[in-house]
Amino acid sequence: MWRDLAPVGRHAASGGYRRFAWTGADADCRAWFRAQALARGLRYEVDRNGNQWAWLGGPHPGAAAGPGERAVATGSHLDSVPDGGAFDGPLGVVSAFAALDELHGRGAVPRRPIAVAAFADEEGARFGLACVGSRLTAGQLDPEHARALRDADGTTLAQAMERAGHDPEAIGPDPERLAGLAAFVELHIEQGRALEPAGSPLGAASAIWPHGRWRFDFRGRADHAGTTALADRHDPMLTYATTVLAARKKARLAGALATFGKVAVEPGGVNAIAALVRGWLDSRAPDEETLAGLVAAVEHAARERAARDGTTVEVVRESATPRVDFAAELRDRVAALAGGGTPVPVLPTGAGHDAGILAAAVPTAMLFVRNPTGVSHSPAEHAAEEDCAAGVSALADVLEGLACR
Amino acid sequence: MWRDLAPVGRHAASGGYRRFAWTGADADCRAWFRAQALARGLRYEVDRNGNQWAWLGGPHPGAAAGPGERAVATGSHLDSVPDGGAFDGPLGVVSAFAALDELHGRGAVPRRPIAVAAFADEEGARFGLACVGSRLTAGQLDPEHARALRDADGTTLAQAMERAGHDPEAIGPDPERLAGLAAFVELHIEQGRALEPAGSPLGAASAIWPHGRWRFDFRGRADHAGTTALADRHDPMLTYATTVLAARKKARLAGALATFGKVAVEPGGVNAIAALVRGWLDSRAPDEETLAGLVAAVEHAARERAARDGTTVEVVRESATPRVDFAAELRDRVAALAGGGTPVPVLPTGAGHDAGILAAAVPTAMLFVRNPTGVSHSPAEHAAEEDCAAGVSALADVLEGLACR
Repeated sequence: MWRDLAPVGRHAASGGYRRFAWTGADADCRAWFRAQALARGLRYEVDRNGNQWAWLGGPHPGAAAGPGERAVATGSHLDSVPDGGAFDGPLGVVSAFAALDELHGRGAVPRRPIAVAAFADEEGARFGLACVGSRLTAGQLDPEHARALRDADGTTLAQAMERAGHDPEAIGPDPERLAGLAAFVELHIEQGRALEPAGSPLGAASAIWPHGRWRFDFRGRADHAGTTALADRHDPMLTYATTVLAARKKARLAGALATFGKVAVEPGGVNAIAALVRGWLDSRAPDEETLAGLVAAVEHAARERAARDGTTVEVVRESATPRVDFAAELRDRVAALAGGGTPVPVLPTGAGHDAGILAAAVPTAMLFVRNPTGVSHSPAEHAAEEDCAAGVSALADVLEGLACR
Repeated sequence: MWRDLAPVGRHAASGGYRRFAWTGADADCRAWFRAQALARGLRYEVDRNGNQWAWLGGPHPGAAAGPGERAVATGSHLDSVPDGGAFDGPLGVVSAFAALDELHGRGAVPRRPIAVAAFADEEGARFGLACVGSRLTAGQLDPEHARALRDADGTTLAQAMERAGHDPEAIGPDPERLAGLAAFVELHIEQGRALEPAGSPLGAASAIWPHGRWRFDFRGRADHAGTTALADRHDPMLTYATTVLAARKKARLAGALATFGKVAVEPGGVNAIAALVRGWLDSRAPDEETLAGLVAAVEHAARERAARDGTTVEVVRESATPRVDFAAELRDRVAALAGGGTPVPVLPTGAGHDAGILAAAVPTAMLFVRNPTGVSHSPAEHAAEEDCAAGVSALADVLEGLACR
């Protein structure tokens, strides 16, 4: 199963994956999902937002279902960041199908429907907004706004969906679908490196840290790099550099994260002092107060240096996602089931997930599989085979506990 | 004359000029030059390298001319950097034609031919190499290498020349042409701000500082910005930022210039720690030893920080131009003629010029017109009208002294 998916959307030079939403590579991943569902005799469907579902013991009972008839869903996503790794997303989908196989092998009899889901466009690599499929379903994204999102080539999400054979007019909130779910459990490779020192192959999520993106525009004056005396310059590259270093230092002091990973310069000539340096800050912290304080401290350092450089700083918040606490009862149950009695470690994560979006409407939990190096969003992302097997087995235990007799 | 040229290649949004070699805007500038030549009854020609010439009292006598029959040439270039100002280049060409008009008004009688020249592709904005027209003429650029230069769209210089109606197979050294010149005097707007404090509208060039471009490749490890603990990162953006600040400090200590004005990041996602940050250092110094020492000091600072960040640094010298000292005798004569007896200030410049290239083969001098703010390579570049008029008058004095009875 894993071998069929491995070559899809893999870039020859980088070794990383480029599975962007509604592209050819994405279509190949979707075809793989459908084939896996049909091979197991599961009922396959694509919901109004392009998310894929494979149902065992359905059909999906809808909102009219009593509490005892609601389904337990598991899964993740198949799309990737640019030059991403093989595990982020697909591990959760592959493990979901494998866990169903294990339940079948155990002779477990479901007392509720079980669904495997693959959510559309989780990474947001193409249209710049993460978790589009789950946000639309949960009513957290205006369909009109979603349709108008554009990729780097100017193609709208509506056009991309249409070309891929999905009706963009159909997208929108899907409360009946969510009301029919008793729980959603997402298995995911660990991002970061907390399980390795803890000596555990698996963990459960306690919360997703609040996070956001801030665009810093540093403006100075374009000038000739070969003739303008240092004292006569208004060079925003200096202000940017100081801000990058300040962000790292302030994040360390706050026990939080801050990263500048994208920068654009105008005019951007080798012999031209920059007129504009635009840098994007990604920042995350355990709580919203710490996050706000950290960003304010970075902005303060930027302004202080700007006064010395004769430059200006403008800060625009481009996105903000509040803290998500996963349902305590389900979290504890999943941690206990996954650990076979002794709960697996429970830890927060800095990364957004479809599970974090759905948590507002459905009891949701996450299982993490140990990432020994912590490397993520990179071709070097890796989990050991035995840890992946432990993840499948634990997910089967969780599904058996939540959905079988 | 100035008014006809002003709108050509001007970008509506930035107000800056985008006159790149062998484009439509360049063709318009070239047509303007031809019209100016023909309107004055000057003999117009384009040399094998695409440089334009307008001859008074020619035709160009060629290598066989005796010392007394050699021509005095003046001029500059018409192309621009991206969003450049109106003066860098065109001021020297416009002033050359205006000086001929002034000589005519004075009734001065040339005893040698006088030529106005506009050199092709001085800024190198399109193909990445500066002074292509003068380098080819002086035999400092291999024609094969030049033809293969590519712009950002992948078009070669040969293709661009051909589309503009110039035969790329004809390009190459032109020693007879240079042997026919007794002197070349280039008038140029000052870049930098030395004449304003000196209280002089005009200056003459003593030398061009040695300069070069170095590409710094900072490599780390792509990782998820939201989940990778700070201590687990190998973030080359931090190394880059430290190097930017170090370059400024070391340049100040060395009495030199150092600038990072261009940077590229991979993968360049907001939520991805960079794997590669590539920054270009432009550096210039009064002498070659100081320049080498400065670049070594910047590289040392980069490596020190890289050791802390767990990143690597590779430095590639992309170009190096040695110091040019203008011919002392001509320089002193031009400074005296331009000052009407009291020589104008003589000062070095950090910028490369066609005059610097030709200096290896022809006695060459430069006249600078005061730039009150020092701003250059920017739409804000400016010279006062009366200073420009003083430049024309001084250039006429120089031409009269060097080439008339």
